[in-house]
Amino acid sequence: MLINGEHFRSIWLNDDGWRVNIIDQTTLPFNFSLVHLSTLQDAACAISDMNVRGAPLIGATAAYGIALTMRNDAGDSAIQIACDTLHATRPTAVNLPWALGEMKQCLLPLPEKDREIAAYNKAAEICDADVKTCKSIGEHGLKIVRKLWEEKGKPNPFHILTHCNAGWLACVDWGTALAPIYLAHDAGIPVHVWVDETRPRNQGAALTAFELGAHGVPHTVIADNAGGHLMQIGQVHMVIVGSDRTTFTGDVCNKIGTYLKALAAHESHVPFYVALPSTTIDWSLANGSAIPIEMRNPVELSHVRGQASDGSIQEVRLIPSESRAKNYAFDVTPAKYVSGLITERGICTASEDGITSLFPERKRKAAE
Amino acid sequence: MLINGEHFRSIWLNDDGWRVNIIDQTTLPFNFSLVHLSTLQDAACAISDMNVRGAPLIGATAAYGIALTMRNDAGDSAIQIACDTLHATRPTAVNLPWALGEMKQCLLPLPEKDREIAAYNKAAEICDADVKTCKSIGEHGLKIVRKLWEEKGKPNPFHILTHCNAGWLACVDWGTALAPIYLAHDAGIPVHVWVDETRPRNQGAALTAFELGAHGVPHTVIADNAGGHLMQIGQVHMVIVGSDRTTFTGDVCNKIGTYLKALAAHESHVPFYVALPSTTIDWSLANGSAIPIEMRNPVELSHVRGQASDGSIQEVRLIPSESRAKNYAFDVTPAKYVSGLITERGICTASEDGITSLFPERKRKAAE
Repeated sequence: MLINGEHFRSIWLNDDGWRVNIIDQTTLPFNFSLVHLSTLQDAACAISDMNVRGAPLIGATAAYGIALTMRNDAGDSAIQIACDTLHATRPTAVNLPWALGEMKQCLLPLPEKDREIAAYNKAAEICDADVKTCKSIGEHGLKIVRKLWEEKGKPNPFHILTHCNAGWLACVDWGTALAPIYLAHDAGIPVHVWVDETRPRNQGAALTAFELGAHGVPHTVIADNAGGHLMQIGQVHMVIVGSDRTTFTGDVCNKIGTYLKALAAHESHVPFYVALPSTTIDWSLANGSAIPIEMRNPVELSHVRGQASDGSIQEVRLIPSESRAKNYAFDVTPAKYVSGLITERGICTASEDGITSLFPERKRKAAE
Repeated sequence: MLINGEHFRSIWLNDDGWRVNIIDQTTLPFNFSLVHLSTLQDAACAISDMNVRGAPLIGATAAYGIALTMRNDAGDSAIQIACDTLHATRPTAVNLPWALGEMKQCLLPLPEKDREIAAYNKAAEICDADVKTCKSIGEHGLKIVRKLWEEKGKPNPFHILTHCNAGWLACVDWGTALAPIYLAHDAGIPVHVWVDETRPRNQGAALTAFELGAHGVPHTVIADNAGGHLMQIGQVHMVIVGSDRTTFTGDVCNKIGTYLKALAAHESHVPFYVALPSTTIDWSLANGSAIPIEMRNPVELSHVRGQASDGSIQEVRLIPSESRAKNYAFDVTPAKYVSGLITERGICTASEDGITSLFPERKRKAAE
């Protein structure tokens, strides 16, 4: 998407034809700086230090990490060591082992001399496929946004609330939840986005606000506490969020706090949509309550990073040093509170019937 | 309540017999320091700079501000100027004009020579009355806590979730929502409190966590986003919050985000109680949606204060400088989501019938 009128992806090949450029997301929204990855170690550190984050982008970075490895040593054992190194960086991200598997499957059958160029091509292919998936999600989502906007008499602004960051910074381009918003904005629908701050990691306040602002989409940051009130007073026309895992029955695991917004949307009859690539669907789970909820470091809650008045990035403590904090990363929104799922194949109800109508090849497997 | 084993109120007369001591709440939870108020101006600044906050404590501080005035000039015009000065500090706080009215009514009929001592006595009386009210709320609330604890088979810990700070720091002692928790803890019920951080002003993370820790009540700070998930997994046995204004029909206006917790509690069958002095009941409003919701400075959301690693208090920015923020201070929880109101006269349903059963003298007026 655009930053100051210039188009960016979250990861791309340097003009020199071999280094890999990423945006350092740890210093956003205050400093926009690029990092050039030259080695496997650079790629691994970028993932583990969270210069890149978001499942699709982590996968893409890992793929390029393998390509960088091939420049120095294209042997089978080098591939395996690189995969192990990259896999260890964020062991829970679902796209990471998938991307590494794709790279291995592509490279191992080839003669060593052909592996470097094949690896770069495959990494680019993984990126392009993600962009295509996100663009499709955006196009299907745009239909819903336009329909709701027209049904409500084309309000200006048309208020969409989102939680966390499911934008292009989490993917390669477009994003998932934000893709329909970008397309709607570009199509002239006067969207305005309520950006949930998204405590404790503030992905909304830092990344979603940055993305939307850089592309020129009107938006306002609010406390996570405010969305219910805004829905009560009719200031939210729809909600779009992403998902980290969705059961084949339509229960949605997403950033902690999503469930509270879904309850409020249901109460105020606000359409609540979840945008997700089909790779996010867990075909083995029938009940969202079985999804394990990651507990993260309480320091993410007890301390916060921001920009001091001198421009430096500072970390400050928010709670008494004697007090304990707990940091639940995700929650599960039951399917009954989800108006619909927006996937790369189209829109469906959050139910087994709805999902398998879009993915009929999964029907037998899900029913097994 | 206790701080390191020593009993404190939030405001009290200095040993010198004329100055007024307060705890500087702007530096909590990191620095515990006392401020001595010597003049009307000291009292006015303490309120406007939020060294003291919380409606009852603001009223008590204003009352002592009048007493300090009487030491220098006990004339009618001095009283009026002092009232105007104090009233202008926080024009929306409901206890402030009430306390000033009480002081005027007490002092104006008296000869000037008797006003200083009468003012100190009246201010002390206002403080003592607030302590008595809060203690009563605590005793009635304790019955509910004990009943729920016993009904659930005396779990250890018994998890109570609270939002914002309705503790002794907001009052003179005990607090409203926290009073039943202190009494339950002191009575040996093994309470553990989930403390909502309470963005954007972090009253939970800073003040409630400090209060509970200083008194020795086990507690854990969580993101405001986490409460719904905790209720889904059975980790919340009851919710107790305070109220800034409650209609005589039982709609509860309280800190932004309260409504979301009420929805989640309803969904997971968690009892949701509101503790409030009867002065909080608005006998003129039948519908909570008519309560005006205060918009506060967006800087409270875009910036946050905390303790840097060198111990100093620093403010950092959290959102892009180009992004707009909006700061809604309160929301309204419809009466149907409130399990009961805990008042100084006892417990009732959140309904006109329930409330007027406790306050029969209001029945005719409410029905007019």
